[in-house]
Amino acid sequence: MNFEHSDKAQKYINLLNKFMEQNVYPNEEIYNNQLKNAEDRWSTPPIMTELRNKARLQGLWNLYIPPSLSKFGGYSLSNLEYAPLAEIMGKIHWAPEIFNCNAPDTGNMEVFMKYATKAQQDKWLTRLLAGEIHSAYAMTEPQVASSDATNIECSITKKNDKYIINGRKWFITGAMHKDCEIFIVMGKSDPNNENRHLQQSQILVPRNTPGLKIVRPLSTLGYDDAPLGHAELLFDNVEVPLENILLGEGRGFEIAQGRLGPGRIHHCMRLIGNAQRALEFVCHRSENRSTFGRKLSQHQSVKEFIATAFAQIEQARLLTYKTADQIDKLGAKDARDYIAAAKITVPKMTQEVIDQAMQIHGAGGLSDDWCMAEGFNYARYCRLADGPDEVHMMALSKQLIRRFTNKS
Amino acid sequence: MNFEHSDKAQKYINLLNKFMEQNVYPNEEIYNNQLKNAEDRWSTPPIMTELRNKARLQGLWNLYIPPSLSKFGGYSLSNLEYAPLAEIMGKIHWAPEIFNCNAPDTGNMEVFMKYATKAQQDKWLTRLLAGEIHSAYAMTEPQVASSDATNIECSITKKNDKYIINGRKWFITGAMHKDCEIFIVMGKSDPNNENRHLQQSQILVPRNTPGLKIVRPLSTLGYDDAPLGHAELLFDNVEVPLENILLGEGRGFEIAQGRLGPGRIHHCMRLIGNAQRALEFVCHRSENRSTFGRKLSQHQSVKEFIATAFAQIEQARLLTYKTADQIDKLGAKDARDYIAAAKITVPKMTQEVIDQAMQIHGAGGLSDDWCMAEGFNYARYCRLADGPDEVHMMALSKQLIRRFTNKS
Amino acid sequence: MNFEHSDKAQKYINLLNKFMEQNVYPNEEIYNNQLKNAEDRWSTPPIMTELRNKARLQGLWNLYIPPSLSKFGGYSLSNLEYAPLAEIMGKIHWAPEIFNCNAPDTGNMEVFMKYATKAQQDKWLTRLLAGEIHSAYAMTEPQVASSDATNIECSITKKNDKYIINGRKWFITGAMHKDCEIFIVMGKSDPNNENRHLQQSQILVPRNTPGLKIVRPLSTLGYDDAPLGHAELLFDNVEVPLENILLGEGRGFEIAQGRLGPGRIHHCMRLIGNAQRALEFVCHRSENRSTFGRKLSQHQSVKEFIATAFAQIEQARLLTYKTADQIDKLGAKDARDYIAAAKITVPKMTQEVIDQAMQIHGAGGLSDDWCMAEGFNYARYCRLADGPDEVHMMALSKQLIRRFTNKS
Amino acid sequence: MNFEHSDKAQKYINLLNKFMEQNVYPNEEIYNNQLKNAEDRWSTPPIMTELRNKARLQGLWNLYIPPSLSKFGGYSLSNLEYAPLAEIMGKIHWAPEIFNCNAPDTGNMEVFMKYATKAQQDKWLTRLLAGEIHSAYAMTEPQVASSDATNIECSITKKNDKYIINGRKWFITGAMHKDCEIFIVMGKSDPNNENRHLQQSQILVPRNTPGLKIVRPLSTLGYDDAPLGHAELLFDNVEVPLENILLGEGRGFEIAQGRLGPGRIHHCMRLIGNAQRALEFVCHRSENRSTFGRKLSQHQSVKEFIATAFAQIEQARLLTYKTADQIDKLGAKDARDYIAAAKITVPKMTQEVIDQAMQIHGAGGLSDDWCMAEGFNYARYCRLADGPDEVHMMALSKQLIRRFTNKS
Repeated sequence: MNFEHSDKAQKYINLLNKFMEQNVYPNEEIYNNQLKNAEDRWSTPPIMTELRNKARLQGLWNLYIPPSLSKFGGYSLSNLEYAPLAEIMGKIHWAPEIFNCNAPDTGNMEVFMKYATKAQQDKWLTRLLAGEIHSAYAMTEPQVASSDATNIECSITKKNDKYIINGRKWFITGAMHKDCEIFIVMGKSDPNNENRHLQQSQILVPRNTPGLKIVRPLSTLGYDDAPLGHAELLFDNVEVPLENILLGEGRGFEIAQGRLGPGRIHHCMRLIGNAQRALEFVCHRSENRSTFGRKLSQHQSVKEFIATAFAQIEQARLLTYKTADQIDKLGAKDARDYIAAAKITVPKMTQEVIDQAMQIHGAGGLSDDWCMAEGFNYARYCRLADGPDEVHMMALSKQLIRRFTNKS
Repeated sequence: MNFEHSDKAQKYINLLNKFMEQNVYPNEEIYNNQLKNAEDRWSTPPIMTELRNKARLQGLWNLYIPPSLSKFGGYSLSNLEYAPLAEIMGKIHWAPEIFNCNAPDTGNMEVFMKYATKAQQDKWLTRLLAGEIHSAYAMTEPQVASSDATNIECSITKKNDKYIINGRKWFITGAMHKDCEIFIVMGKSDPNNENRHLQQSQILVPRNTPGLKIVRPLSTLGYDDAPLGHAELLFDNVEVPLENILLGEGRGFEIAQGRLGPGRIHHCMRLIGNAQRALEFVCHRSENRSTFGRKLSQHQSVKEFIATAFAQIEQARLLTYKTADQIDKLGAKDARDYIAAAKITVPKMTQEVIDQAMQIHGAGGLSDDWCMAEGFNYARYCRLADGPDEVHMMALSKQLIRRFTNKS
Repeated sequence: MNFEHSDKAQKYINLLNKFMEQNVYPNEEIYNNQLKNAEDRWSTPPIMTELRNKARLQGLWNLYIPPSLSKFGGYSLSNLEYAPLAEIMGKIHWAPEIFNCNAPDTGNMEVFMKYATKAQQDKWLTRLLAGEIHSAYAMTEPQVASSDATNIECSITKKNDKYIINGRKWFITGAMHKDCEIFIVMGKSDPNNENRHLQQSQILVPRNTPGLKIVRPLSTLGYDDAPLGHAELLFDNVEVPLENILLGEGRGFEIAQGRLGPGRIHHCMRLIGNAQRALEFVCHRSENRSTFGRKLSQHQSVKEFIATAFAQIEQARLLTYKTADQIDKLGAKDARDYIAAAKITVPKMTQEVIDQAMQIHGAGGLSDDWCMAEGFNYARYCRLADGPDEVHMMALSKQLIRRFTNKS
Repeated sequence: MNFEHSDKAQKYINLLNKFMEQNVYPNEEIYNNQLKNAEDRWSTPPIMTELRNKARLQGLWNLYIPPSLSKFGGYSLSNLEYAPLAEIMGKIHWAPEIFNCNAPDTGNMEVFMKYATKAQQDKWLTRLLAGEIHSAYAMTEPQVASSDATNIECSITKKNDKYIINGRKWFITGAMHKDCEIFIVMGKSDPNNENRHLQQSQILVPRNTPGLKIVRPLSTLGYDDAPLGHAELLFDNVEVPLENILLGEGRGFEIAQGRLGPGRIHHCMRLIGNAQRALEFVCHRSENRSTFGRKLSQHQSVKEFIATAFAQIEQARLLTYKTADQIDKLGAKDARDYIAAAKITVPKMTQEVIDQAMQIHGAGGLSDDWCMAEGFNYARYCRLADGPDEVHMMALSKQLIRRFTNKS
């Protein structure tokens, strides 16, 4: 056992920290202003384009691509090596995109790398890897508990040389962006199959396909998460050619399973960056703000928060590192106990840490003068993203009962 | 001891419930849409005007005015009788305004009733009572811990026949509204007075006074709280006539103390309405949504939430009733232990109940398709409004230590 | 609505407080020493006998008997009037017995009053009311989840002119005491009855009946709760005459239901006394102990605890009062929503408050130099006594869902 | 970074697990009975002596001795390698003693190894290492906040060729045991020294020294922790020869600092063993107990507990491993941030996990039929042992504020 980063990880940590300090933190206000004053909230602010170019030139691009997929780009960083990088990028809510490392594009690119045909890759993956377009993954439906994929109602019907798609989706992250050109859609192609895990397929739907309607943006706790956004989508007799199916009919569930492991961990690491930054804000403020004749840092309850938050964040970080390592060594499927454990732990921890950090900042802490409220929203949202925590607890407990009832 | 509402209270509970069911709930979506599509987010949506007229005609207007001030209107309802009414109005975030019972106008009107001259009342109170204008109470400042009123830095300087005001305020609720015509401003008129509680004055500043700049709206957790809003204000050599002083120079602290008791309880009751409504949503959903082959109501953790939330809400409600009764019987000053207890309890309870209620609703629960996210924001904000909870804990503990160290 | 005690309640509050201060607090150490040094831990310490005589003489005896049963004694105090008295007595773990108001005797006496024949009353109730003997209520069984009474396995078989009882019970409070002369035993007399609520009977078993074996005392968190204790009992072909049945065969469930309402509330009020006393200890210590150059009362986290605990205790108290009032007005059955709410709230609150109060007292706080550890144990135990909280949450949520799905 | 145990650690994990399964678990009931029925609660039960002999023969003895002190025994296991072993031993409260790895003897032996003279080592350490005697560390005093060592009032006065010791100590673990032959006593030898960290000395006091009185055993939550116990001690003009001073006059604070690092981590690891075992009990019970027609494992709230507890335990374990590694690499002083983090995290986590695990076991879970109540007590006690958590939070926050205010 050993808790030091590999030399390679350490190298990228240093590079990334330097890039953030030189290029990103100084532009935080500019980004916010450009977004606030944009004519179209769903397009990339100019400063982002500038920063993306810089990151690519400096060799900080597609960092998330694991060794097994390194032919597609990146630097052959394992999940464990990528974890601290995701944390650093996560300290600013919009920073991962600078490095082409933002959700849901990373997960979608992995789907393309692992499950798409060469033709599909040439058409979409290439441009995604280059950061020219965005993508969306359309799974959740408003009318059913979509965390149970077998509930999905969107239909994919083969008719002659087409698939016809009908259904309603919502909370489809990234779909509001005007550059989101490709949707990976989960639906049922064989709803009567006895094997409930063979009923689903995933299929590619280009943005401008007739019948695909972007109904509206959705917000969470008042945030619309522009410019990527969360959209409600209507598929009304949307037709795509047969070649748009991913991997093959009936393999949608399989793809869904394969997609989620690393993605959840990326969320976790980014969230840890949020929590860490909030803690640092508190430390700073506690030395620079006085109430009732004393620095905040002299108030015992502020001290207790700082110490406790440090312990909570560090524990969550170690759990996430171990999870990443398990994914690297065992694959996402056999690491699902740790993936679930991280998933049910980190967003909740982050929400709680930021909640208290905001409190220590007074009313301003709730405003957008700080990034904490947005981080709070991100954490809160992640308790439901990729399935509510409760569903993951259910699955994890089942595994654990099996494991521990053999001994005691 | 007796837990039944007075006949009078019960009468107004019935009237108000009926009004809500006939007129308000059915217009919830309309209000939201009018606000969302408004040209000016800071003006009253037409449906509100319509509902206000209806409420006034039906004798549901200025319900908050206590017996001691009944010559100004209302129905001579005690704080204890008003409490359940505030809860009912609070179930919809924007509903209190329908009945001219919204913060901060109610608190401001009480200030006018208790501390203003006849001339000041004629000029401003009359129109406030009639619901023709809105008002704001400008106390909090960005650069100091304003919960300690002696930190206030805004200056009020007498010069010839004018007072000149200079300072910066923020989170001034209501100030964004285009009909907000009068600001009650707290500042220091005598910063060197040895008695730190005689340094402050409160003064009236009409909206269009030169030098008063509404800098920007502020948001909390992504909500701008339109159309009332929370504003940042700049007072740059703002001049007002001497007659605009409230009560007299050096009496600002006294007014601040007198203003806060009932106002905090009103917040608490409205928040209980929010929590109660979230609980009712959960009960409804738990019977109408299934996951993994079972209604939500069959999941033990959902049951435990429902039972626990009921107990928490009922406890908070009883504490708030008792607080209201203490104010009625002892006055706000001698009821400050209970006021503090309610203040530090109810917003936190509401935040926690709604947090879990949203979780049970899935991602949609975080969106504005439900009113829970907005209620969550309101609860979160109230943990800082009128001073952070921690300040009230400090004061309350001091009282309690004194009380309990005389016995054991 | 009104939060003042009735004159009668107030009179008894004053009398009881005076009695506690004059007679009980000064003897706290003596009682503890007598018990610690007793030859037989399961017998009444002499100081208790002395105090009981004094209490009876001063008219503070059987205070718990409600108006409807006042022919048996007491002072016709309603549950609402009795609640503050139970709190005062509860401040010392062993004090309720002084006033013949301790569990499980109070509940058992109520059973005798409501369900026993004249002959049964003459034989047992008279002596219980006089405080000459103790009693036990034997329901819980080790091998089944006894909170679901239909699981009970103890058998009651009629054979000629006898009932024969076989089974194992545990956590039978009071049964260790050498003066515990009568056991009310719940068993199944008709295990095949289609109506699962008619399978049970309750039957009287005198202590010395052959076949009744007191297997061992049980402890909770290290406390054996002497001299009353919690026993494991074995019924091995125990024979009692037919006249020992209570109310009639098949009515055991009915009696169980009738017994539990007030009993749970008595526990709650006594627990509130424990929490309140711990809070008072903290206030006292916070003024009299310094660490790192400051009184504990100057540490912000101690202040926050004191304020929060006050608010929690007061809320729990109000909930318990309201529950008592509901029992008085509607009967235990129709007050079961409030009874459940209090049951799931008060013990947990008390445990949490005392836990933190002990922490503030340092290691000594965990010892028997203070009564907090014992109060902590009492609170912890009550989360399981009369059924685990989770079972009551289940029942309560069912009621609430029904109630709230008719509106929304 | 790498999360696998070293080969050496793994070897000892396997050996220890095997030993526990073959020798310790099967004797759990026997140990408990021997202790319960012992004539002298403060002496070693025969089964313990038997098991100790077996452990020594099998090469599982003094496992805690780190590489730097390996000349004194053990197997040169680093703290990181020892951590999982302490967890395994910790699963049974009294098991560490089998391997001569129990507190406070391990910490005391380290003090002898690091700070004692050859003569002192020959006289006491040799017998401690051989498991022939026990020892105690007398620091805490009832009348002062002893977590701040500068408050210590016990006096050590040199007079001719003697030191004379006067003072009162309590919660001195191990001191009740009849084989506890040596006390390391912390006192003030130079109370007026300007440097408050040079006022203290530590000195050796053999058990039978005249004037040393073992006043009484103390309990925590009803547990006396026999046979080691926690004693109150009186030093009444106790005289020891000059050579009994440790390291030198005025160096008591230095020794105290050096003693505490690894000891706290050992507590943490043992506690994790307690929490882990409770979780395993729950898993087992959840499959073997039914309520209301369903296995406990089918209740969603039980599932959520199992999953959450797993995540909490694993996080705490990783934090403790990292702390152990930091001690190995940086020394206890420079690892004090992590030591504090583990100290404030693990006992609280363990208490919470066991609390809920007991709840799931019903009333029996609180009894000594399970080891959970005793584990709960151990966890609760550790929140105060080696200083209350709050003191460690204070120190840790100070470090963190310094660290994080240089960046952010």
